[in-house]
Amino acid sequence: MNDEGNLRPRYPGSSPQNPRILVVGAGAIGGYYAGKLAQSGAIVSTVHHSQADYDAVRTHGIHVESIHGDFHYHPFSVHREVPGASFSADTILVAVKALPDLDVAELIRPAVREHTVIVLLQNGLGNEELIAKAFPRNTLISGLAFICVSRIRPGVLRHLCYGRLSIGLYPRGVDDHVRGLSTLFESSGVSCAVCTDIIGERWKKLVWNAAFNPISVLGHQATTRDMMDSGVVRTLIENVMREVCRLARAEGYPLDEEAMVAKNMGETDRMESYKTSMLLDFEAGRPLEVEAILGYASRVARKHGIAAPCLNTLHALLTLATRPKVG
Amino acid sequence: MNDEGNLRPRYPGSSPQNPRILVVGAGAIGGYYAGKLAQSGAIVSTVHHSQADYDAVRTHGIHVESIHGDFHYHPFSVHREVPGASFSADTILVAVKALPDLDVAELIRPAVREHTVIVLLQNGLGNEELIAKAFPRNTLISGLAFICVSRIRPGVLRHLCYGRLSIGLYPRGVDDHVRGLSTLFESSGVSCAVCTDIIGERWKKLVWNAAFNPISVLGHQATTRDMMDSGVVRTLIENVMREVCRLARAEGYPLDEEAMVAKNMGETDRMESYKTSMLLDFEAGRPLEVEAILGYASRVARKHGIAAPCLNTLHALLTLATRPKVG
Repeated sequence: MNDEGNLRPRYPGSSPQNPRILVVGAGAIGGYYAGKLAQSGAIVSTVHHSQADYDAVRTHGIHVESIHGDFHYHPFSVHREVPGASFSADTILVAVKALPDLDVAELIRPAVREHTVIVLLQNGLGNEELIAKAFPRNTLISGLAFICVSRIRPGVLRHLCYGRLSIGLYPRGVDDHVRGLSTLFESSGVSCAVCTDIIGERWKKLVWNAAFNPISVLGHQATTRDMMDSGVVRTLIENVMREVCRLARAEGYPLDEEAMVAKNMGETDRMESYKTSMLLDFEAGRPLEVEAILGYASRVARKHGIAAPCLNTLHALLTLATRPKVG
Repeated sequence: MNDEGNLRPRYPGSSPQNPRILVVGAGAIGGYYAGKLAQSGAIVSTVHHSQADYDAVRTHGIHVESIHGDFHYHPFSVHREVPGASFSADTILVAVKALPDLDVAELIRPAVREHTVIVLLQNGLGNEELIAKAFPRNTLISGLAFICVSRIRPGVLRHLCYGRLSIGLYPRGVDDHVRGLSTLFESSGVSCAVCTDIIGERWKKLVWNAAFNPISVLGHQATTRDMMDSGVVRTLIENVMREVCRLARAEGYPLDEEAMVAKNMGETDRMESYKTSMLLDFEAGRPLEVEAILGYASRVARKHGIAAPCLNTLHALLTLATRPKVG
């Protein structure tokens, strides 16, 4: 297979330097990175689930208030649904939330062609498996975003801190698509690491996420400082991190437990206090990625027969806290 | 020692049938049982921490809207502080919350005489130890209340369901004081079991309390039905119950783990859905008995080197959720 071939122009106006990219779920994270890709010359189209976002973006484009300097862009085309036969993209970048009742494969299927590269920029673990199964012949890139960005109103985003990406082929490796996408991001100033073992990187990110995100919500609106200031909570956080490390190891991604705990605790101690993304979602009444972050870990524990009582407890409590409320 | 002697009249107006009882913490539970004792002929005085309660009760007495029929009583005397030298009681019944920053021994010390019987009607475990240490020569009775009663405004209580008591000597055994107090309660229609092993009974009650009370709060206002309807939450509840059973066994109170889990789950499945007392306290902004219910269990686990990851997780999260909120 000739990897280079997939990057050749296939549609009018598309070229390796100006690929057509369809961003599905152009909310905070999707909208921000879509803008950076547009700055680099990509022909970016966006899909908005919300009517308000769709209306605002179609009329005014997307405005980003960024710590790196505000910017504004108009997508090449704006859609409410993933476009079908009449539309073609070299790359589909998926930045919708990882929620159990959303079938991402079915969502993007209308736009997936033989050579379409699919990029998943989602939280948690387990998202790639279903996409790889649905589109086994397509190149699948998994990406991790380290960024604080929020949508403050339709068509307006606020980028508060960080912004780097890590990307790699699923399940492992790197190819020219990965390198090409990284180059595209880097040329707009987004640091984008190319990883040969992106799922290992996901496990590393989960070490922090699986502890701080759920505990911030279950601890009733706790900031990172609130959590780090309590001895019993610190112990809990460390225990959760150790459980994640053990699961990663069982899945073939060995992590140094002591080093991971020390690194994550130390960095969080040195950070400014802030609210986790899960807490911000919870406070705004948005759905939480409980299954992608904790449900997956619980299932991995069960599969390998590994005890993960803290993760299981957090998973059960968060399932309860996010139950559908009647009336 | 002649147990009978302690029940003999020592103060004008006091007799075994009409003992002088000082109820410290005459809120919902204390106010209810004080009223039942008054109905049985006890000379009941009450201590109210809240000025509003004190004012209302001094003027109007206490009104109880009860499923067993409403009733009204005027305490013999009403106090804002535990009365000292000029006051004498045969029995001090303590029904204040079990909170770490409240030193119950110091609170009641002004009213404790050589022969005063002390009755603790509090939740959780570990409350008796400090009282026994402070007043080693006094008879100490430990009591468990199974009741739903709430204070709906100063001087007015609503008794919704249940109402039975279990009492016994601390740390174990039964004497004439216990039997006399039970008779007094029973003569007002309160079922009051006499237990030779009251701390074992406390552990049994903790099996339910340690699971449902914390989870109802951490699960963001979950009723018993919300909890029982979720498979992962049921598993968590059962795991918490098993951990409590193991701790009870290590402390010398063997409980049949399977039978306890089956009994508590079955009874809760058959109950009407309701909010736990800890959840009601949380919603009302009142302090929660985190340490008496979960902190004690965590300490017992540490003492014996027994794993109690679910209890420890609940303890840490509840500590976080009830942290002092700034501004």
